[in-house]
Amino acid sequence: MNSTEFYYLLGMIGIVAFAVTAVLAVIPKGIDLFGACVMGIITAVGGGTIRDMILDVPVFWSQDLNYIWVSLFASIIAFYGYRLMNKRHIYQLMLYLDGLGVAMFIVQGADKAIALDFGMPVGPVILGLTTAIGGGLIRDVLAGTSTLLMKKDLYAVPLTIGAVLYMILLNEYPDYSNIIGVGCATFTFILRAIAIYREMKVPNWMMLKAYANDQMK
Amino acid sequence: MNSTEFYYLLGMIGIVAFAVTAVLAVIPKGIDLFGACVMGIITAVGGGTIRDMILDVPVFWSQDLNYIWVSLFASIIAFYGYRLMNKRHIYQLMLYLDGLGVAMFIVQGADKAIALDFGMPVGPVILGLTTAIGGGLIRDVLAGTSTLLMKKDLYAVPLTIGAVLYMILLNEYPDYSNIIGVGCATFTFILRAIAIYREMKVPNWMMLKAYANDQMK
Amino acid sequence: MNSTEFYYLLGMIGIVAFAVTAVLAVIPKGIDLFGACVMGIITAVGGGTIRDMILDVPVFWSQDLNYIWVSLFASIIAFYGYRLMNKRHIYQLMLYLDGLGVAMFIVQGADKAIALDFGMPVGPVILGLTTAIGGGLIRDVLAGTSTLLMKKDLYAVPLTIGAVLYMILLNEYPDYSNIIGVGCATFTFILRAIAIYREMKVPNWMMLKAYANDQMK
Repeated sequence: MNSTEFYYLLGMIGIVAFAVTAVLAVIPKGIDLFGACVMGIITAVGGGTIRDMILDVPVFWSQDLNYIWVSLFASIIAFYGYRLMNKRHIYQLMLYLDGLGVAMFIVQGADKAIALDFGMPVGPVILGLTTAIGGGLIRDVLAGTSTLLMKKDLYAVPLTIGAVLYMILLNEYPDYSNIIGVGCATFTFILRAIAIYREMKVPNWMMLKAYANDQMK
Repeated sequence: MNSTEFYYLLGMIGIVAFAVTAVLAVIPKGIDLFGACVMGIITAVGGGTIRDMILDVPVFWSQDLNYIWVSLFASIIAFYGYRLMNKRHIYQLMLYLDGLGVAMFIVQGADKAIALDFGMPVGPVILGLTTAIGGGLIRDVLAGTSTLLMKKDLYAVPLTIGAVLYMILLNEYPDYSNIIGVGCATFTFILRAIAIYREMKVPNWMMLKAYANDQMK
Repeated sequence: MNSTEFYYLLGMIGIVAFAVTAVLAVIPKGIDLFGACVMGIITAVGGGTIRDMILDVPVFWSQDLNYIWVSLFASIIAFYGYRLMNKRHIYQLMLYLDGLGVAMFIVQGADKAIALDFGMPVGPVILGLTTAIGGGLIRDVLAGTSTLLMKKDLYAVPLTIGAVLYMILLNEYPDYSNIIGVGCATFTFILRAIAIYREMKVPNWMMLKAYANDQMK
């Protein structure tokens, strides 16, 4: 499998993971099949769409409609499959699938920015994050739920670590980009999976809420 | 009237309908004249702006400021005209005007994507929907109200049927694009108008809420 | 200092002001360091990013990463500096800093649109407003707080007056663009500062809320 195929596969896995988690997340809010599919597709391709608009390149799904079809079918399956799943298991599965998706997209998004020499070396980190969390942010805003930026889960920090590590390693060992890509996606997923499993929260030195609350009174 | 003029007229009717409905929708939330005009303009041109950014073509209103002026004046008239209208009639008028706007834009948006051979045949459906509901989604998000994706009204389904039908008919009878455009816009509006008149909701097989709620308990 | 350097300095002052106010605004909602930095960066560069995407030019920060670094460091300093500041003073400082930022950006954003001859003469006003309030709107939407469009503060009106004045004066005296730029930014800031100091609200003739409320009952 060459580099292009590899990143294509990463992207498709991420698309499926995002569409499914989006649908599972909005069903309890009482969405219908059409809304669920729109949410699934927007979450799956939204981050990459914003990335491509910022990079000023043709939007990726316009040149390969498989991205749309895959996210549409994944959304429909998730919508009707919801009944078959136990609620607690759904929630756990959703978290890990989402972790898989963001780990795929952080590397894939950064890679597209690198290929275009966009704002090196910070641009790829920003566009990797945009690809990974952009779709989810749009979903939360459209669904009227609190966005991940306002939550205390250890979510975006592992992604940023993964993206920064990817940039450092690529700079040191430019000949091993595929291995480094797989490694960083795996590393990012493991970091996120540990955070999910241990229900880790952002450490205290990164929080100011308690203090802010005191001061409010 | 040639094809260009025809779609120009469709666009202007949609612009007026969207600006007016946006202003009527946000006034009860206590918005001022300036905010109402911003909301009117964003709702009227927002969907088309996103479409043009995705298509990577110059934003339509930058080349013809009539779109901005028309939506600005429609917003001002709607703002001060609000006092003259009976609340119940306003609400009904708003729904039908909005139905007219989305029916115009679904065809106009799809047509622009077709002209650029963008992601055929799925791209025009997506960009038609983007043009039709994008501005309204931005309005709802900025106004802090629940977006149409979370409601049970039969809203986006008629639009999607109209856009898909437009693509099928154009593919079969490419020589009759104007007639097909008028026909599909009219058909979409009639579908939506029936849904408004009969207060139709999304059918049960497209809903999972009741089940989801049971499972929650 | 030539024109390019001048607008660069305007931009950087605006960036710092926006990053700091964004962080101070979201801390009471219980955000962590990472979220605060993301909010700070998005607020600081978000409006200009949308402007550049609409103008279809390379996003400004991709060609000069100082914008990202400055907004990142300003966010971190604001996050940890929050403890040192008295709540009431923070709030006042935040309002004036924000007023400084929008006054800088309204001129800088309009100027970039003028340089590209974008939708003259209305386009520069719209893109000046986009640059000035776009980042703050994204911040409010992501933080789940009410956007400035729904508030009664005299906020966007001074900006619009400043932008329209800038376009009129530039048209009359094209040789004095720098002086007019400084003058309009200063004038806009003074207008906004008076509105903050006197706690001015939108005048009654621009409001319909009382009437709307009556009608609701």
